[in-house]
Amino acid sequence: MTEHAHPPGYSSDKAAILSRLRRIEGQIRGIEKMVDADTYCIDVLTQVSAATKALQSVALSLVNDHLGHCVRDAISNGDNADEKIAEASAAIARLVKS
Amino acid sequence: MTEHAHPPGYSSDKAAILSRLRRIEGQIRGIEKMVDADTYCIDVLTQVSAATKALQSVALSLVNDHLGHCVRDAISNGDNADEKIAEASAAIARLVKS
Amino acid sequence: MTEHAHPPGYSSDKAAILSRLRRIEGQIRGIEKMVDADTYCIDVLTQVSAATKALQSVALSLVNDHLGHCVRDAISNGDNADEKIAEASAAIARLVKS
Amino acid sequence: MTEHAHPPGYSSDKAAILSRLRRIEGQIRGIEKMVDADTYCIDVLTQVSAATKALQSVALSLVNDHLGHCVRDAISNGDNADEKIAEASAAIARLVKS
Repeated sequence: MTEHAHPPGYSSDKAAILSRLRRIEGQIRGIEKMVDADTYCIDVLTQVSAATKALQSVALSLVNDHLGHCVRDAISNGDNADEKIAEASAAIARLVKS
Repeated sequence: MTEHAHPPGYSSDKAAILSRLRRIEGQIRGIEKMVDADTYCIDVLTQVSAATKALQSVALSLVNDHLGHCVRDAISNGDNADEKIAEASAAIARLVKS
Repeated sequence: MTEHAHPPGYSSDKAAILSRLRRIEGQIRGIEKMVDADTYCIDVLTQVSAATKALQSVALSLVNDHLGHCVRDAISNGDNADEKIAEASAAIARLVKS
Repeated sequence: MTEHAHPPGYSSDKAAILSRLRRIEGQIRGIEKMVDADTYCIDVLTQVSAATKALQSVALSLVNDHLGHCVRDAISNGDNADEKIAEASAAIARLVKS
């Protein structure tokens, strides 16, 4: 993991991001209970799809915050802008492929 | 949620599915800690992509089990085969679109 | 490519599938023209996303037809049912990961 | 479609992008021939997944070029930076959801 002196791009959204992640954690725990209770496959799958969508939505918020703060600051300050843009593109590619 | 008298398709994989879901729950909790500790956006995003992939992989196991048991039995027994196939296709579509 | 004596699962949908593929081919050709005319990146990306969605939608129709005909017949006739189910699951996994 | 006086972000990659799109157009035409020849569903699906992956890969190149040129220039020049970042995030979201 990289050391960064600056606050992350999601600083102003931190509480909202954390609460969305806790809700997703609850969704996963709910899916565990469904599996433990032998719930019908399709009902389990529906909840897995919902949790996946919720995770992707958190990821898209993080990307938006990252572009609007970290990448933007790097470009404005001429501080490793090339590296930041390549790094963001690689993260977006991992997201599209996941 | 639908009532089903029969065991779900993932019965023989139940322990493995549960342990994968618990690992994903741990991944989500790890992501919450990262966000709480102001970890760099890209490092958070990498873990969100990993958790998303893990969830999709559980979903694909559930689909495989569902086809190999529930759908197969419905077809073999001539018991609502049309409905089961339509239901499986709809679940696969939700998965592809999530 | 596998030899198959039987008609494919999409036989009764063949005309519709072909017409959707031709429309997608047209979309791709349209995107080429946009790129050739130096169209703004975001407008090109919007069309690439639309063509990707259209392709996935064709794939989901093929999966539905395959389950409802090829997989169903294999199970009904006890003819390589295990193999057919494993093959369908692998195709669905490729689709989810693409 | 938006009017833009400047060259698009993919200008220096234009020939490569066009040649990848032409290859994808050829893949789609190949899939049409497979369907027309009643090729086995799974073999058709494999090619549809390959074409989908190829399209996503073109999209990721366009995103990378867009961030590295259009978004970067907007930020450097203080020219509608907020709008450009919001627009890029929206395009990335459409891509992740497609």
